[in-house]
Amino acid sequence: MKKRMTLLDSGFIRMERHESPQHGTILIIFQMPTGSPQDYMQRLAAHMRGFPVTRTRFNWRLSKSLTDKAVPAWDVLAPDEIDLDYHFRHSALPRPGSELELALVVSRLATHPIDLSRPPWEVHLIEGLQEDRFALFVKVHHSLVDGMTVLKILRSWLSEDPTQTDAAPLWASAPALKSKAPQQKRDREDETSLVRKVVGAAQGAVDVAVGVGESAVSIGGAVAKTVAAGFGSDDGLVAPYSPPRTLFNNRITQRRRISTQRVELARLRSIARRIDGTLNDAIATVFGGAVRRYLIEHDALPDRTLVGGVLASLRATIDEAASENAGNVISFIFADLATDIDDIDERAKRVVRSTRAGKDHLLGLNKDAMNYSSLMLLPFLATTLTGTGHLLPAFNVGLSNVPGVDVPMYWNGALAEALHATTIITNGQALVVTVTSWNDHLCFTFTACPDAVPHSQRLSVYLVEALEDAEKALLS
Amino acid sequence: MKKRMTLLDSGFIRMERHESPQHGTILIIFQMPTGSPQDYMQRLAAHMRGFPVTRTRFNWRLSKSLTDKAVPAWDVLAPDEIDLDYHFRHSALPRPGSELELALVVSRLATHPIDLSRPPWEVHLIEGLQEDRFALFVKVHHSLVDGMTVLKILRSWLSEDPTQTDAAPLWASAPALKSKAPQQKRDREDETSLVRKVVGAAQGAVDVAVGVGESAVSIGGAVAKTVAAGFGSDDGLVAPYSPPRTLFNNRITQRRRISTQRVELARLRSIARRIDGTLNDAIATVFGGAVRRYLIEHDALPDRTLVGGVLASLRATIDEAASENAGNVISFIFADLATDIDDIDERAKRVVRSTRAGKDHLLGLNKDAMNYSSLMLLPFLATTLTGTGHLLPAFNVGLSNVPGVDVPMYWNGALAEALHATTIITNGQALVVTVTSWNDHLCFTFTACPDAVPHSQRLSVYLVEALEDAEKALLS
Repeated sequence: MKKRMTLLDSGFIRMERHESPQHGTILIIFQMPTGSPQDYMQRLAAHMRGFPVTRTRFNWRLSKSLTDKAVPAWDVLAPDEIDLDYHFRHSALPRPGSELELALVVSRLATHPIDLSRPPWEVHLIEGLQEDRFALFVKVHHSLVDGMTVLKILRSWLSEDPTQTDAAPLWASAPALKSKAPQQKRDREDETSLVRKVVGAAQGAVDVAVGVGESAVSIGGAVAKTVAAGFGSDDGLVAPYSPPRTLFNNRITQRRRISTQRVELARLRSIARRIDGTLNDAIATVFGGAVRRYLIEHDALPDRTLVGGVLASLRATIDEAASENAGNVISFIFADLATDIDDIDERAKRVVRSTRAGKDHLLGLNKDAMNYSSLMLLPFLATTLTGTGHLLPAFNVGLSNVPGVDVPMYWNGALAEALHATTIITNGQALVVTVTSWNDHLCFTFTACPDAVPHSQRLSVYLVEALEDAEKALLS
Repeated sequence: MKKRMTLLDSGFIRMERHESPQHGTILIIFQMPTGSPQDYMQRLAAHMRGFPVTRTRFNWRLSKSLTDKAVPAWDVLAPDEIDLDYHFRHSALPRPGSELELALVVSRLATHPIDLSRPPWEVHLIEGLQEDRFALFVKVHHSLVDGMTVLKILRSWLSEDPTQTDAAPLWASAPALKSKAPQQKRDREDETSLVRKVVGAAQGAVDVAVGVGESAVSIGGAVAKTVAAGFGSDDGLVAPYSPPRTLFNNRITQRRRISTQRVELARLRSIARRIDGTLNDAIATVFGGAVRRYLIEHDALPDRTLVGGVLASLRATIDEAASENAGNVISFIFADLATDIDDIDERAKRVVRSTRAGKDHLLGLNKDAMNYSSLMLLPFLATTLTGTGHLLPAFNVGLSNVPGVDVPMYWNGALAEALHATTIITNGQALVVTVTSWNDHLCFTFTACPDAVPHSQRLSVYLVEALEDAEKALLS
């Protein structure tokens, strides 16, 4: 069976470049259930391997026929046509197995392009994380599914029930086949898989959002309107094209460096209240402090302030009263990060002033067409639709607020402690930061090209120090 | 400084393909020194990171200038222009950390193509191997250095002295810089490395063999003569083009599966004596048995026998008396693997008869021009120079005998227990086996594409079983 691609989805195929592979990743950190046996990870890996690929989209492969090259399409594969050993991989961290070793391993995994001659996804089970934890690293090409849909799938895949057992892995929608002779069965599968044929109906029944293309066009329009409105404005709305050139706007290579940080949601909320701003304002204020320190250390701080491109649900950026009507609307706002000054109170004021001006403007746009599905597309849209790139950055750093969960979530009894999302970076946008709200924490993820942004992992350290500085300056 | 490439070396750049990246790898397994501390691997990794890239060739990068695209050349880089974090990586195995987990990890590492916008090599330090062992996995593009030269460098890099300490890693020719402020120093390096400039003289002083191109042309001629001589011969010389089509001669994808095996040299020597043949004859006899079982299990055994293409030093294939004069000559012989019969005694006779006929022929060739440096080039030469491919395989499986060491070798006090070498496979040559003599063992390495040769790791298991069968049939 064939599936035609939407215009946007096929865009990700055409955009695939050596230095900018069009995939996103999700990293979930789990706590092992208490009293897990020594061979917990081996058993878990064996359990997962027992499930063939049956979930829809996970069994789609780019069609190789000539006509489909003009209008890209997917072939839907049968489970025995998909070699799970390629897509599911079991890895380990060197000792001491801290967040640093994890970040280095997922940075490497994120660097390798996805093989587009197979269903374009990988799931990595990673053992050896300190304090009886492990990680799942999910890598998906954006032509198959955009980042927000991956998150939707993940949220419905996780369970609120800590006693759940025998739950299927992400790629399966059916229980594991309990074959009496797994060895012989697998051999037969291998042989039939040598004859790759297009088969019948898609398996599984996940409800995947469609119409991403439409909403992308809408947000493109929104960005363009914001750009237009920004010129000559004197109400605090940061004018696009005013950002200085920084190392965050250099050309990139294929290499990626991912680093992560996790802080209590309550700490940022306290700052938001104190500065009379939103949670995103508090995040931008703290992030501005971290960026300032990083650039000073690299002797690369410009005189003018850096500008953040903040993509978030409108609900997160407007006050509680108005949020009832905001629905799933997202906002894209240019935020003054006030990196040119050291005073934290003053920085917070400038952040709030700039994002308020942006919001007043955005509320006048066609909001219904802008939905969560577009949320992960920031760099793609920003560079493509605004027509800018590394020559004239529209903003210096992308900040993406990704909706998470507000209750503890589990998989097979293991608590999902954190969820981090990376996304595409491009020439001129060499650093993107995503922030996921996950239960009572915020999970920060820094995706950077280390050849453009050296030692980007220091930003995750400076973020915590900037938070402490802000607490001292604002709350004491 | 620029270095022009030889014709053969630049050939590897032109031959680089998605499904057939032109790199080779070496896997060395070490035993930790007795009484090593818990954090031995962390210390070792830190020790290695202290050395900048100063060894010649390891600091060469493909020139990007337009004129150099026509006639490829290398830029020689200064140490501070090379980001060691990219080239040296620290990894770990999932538990239980057996040879299986190691093989899976190095298979993945071997699959990823090398980034040709940097000096084209990687060194992976791998911890978590059972029985207090660890591994080094060295990956080098053949345009930079051919497999035999890598082996030469490795042999001179290892030491016969078990008490040696503070030895440099493979990429360094000078002692580590003992900087008082390593953090600040590294930052400065990062900044200068942003300005990539071509610099002065090559560092280090390893004597690297030149003239690979010449010897390759010679061996090409030798293969062609062998091919020509094979037609119509009735002296046991296996006629090229007679091999049946097997799954070993399928088209390949980018994916690799590496598996290894290690057996006592004395066991194969006993069989060689009993069958009145060479060590390679004994290896081919045992390997023929393993291949027969594998193909029967996959219901893919052809009626006609499979033909092995055996590349080895002539010293290993002729009798002791003649070997004195053979020097560094290599031989390329088509060997009858006698996979069409079950009788081991009969198989051994057919193997010996075919390789003797081949040797008598090869001794008449221009031997001096054929040297060890060409030894790893088998598949490249076989498919390119004989003009065959997957349509008409000249032989079914490549068997490469790689010279190793005959005394225990160490690095920083760790015994190098085994050395395995992988090489390039191509469409039509989806499996190549290398055999390294390493102290008192033979190290077998199976390099295959799992999409063409499913479960190739079983060959390494069947090899040991075929050896036991041969011992029972021939020696008892």
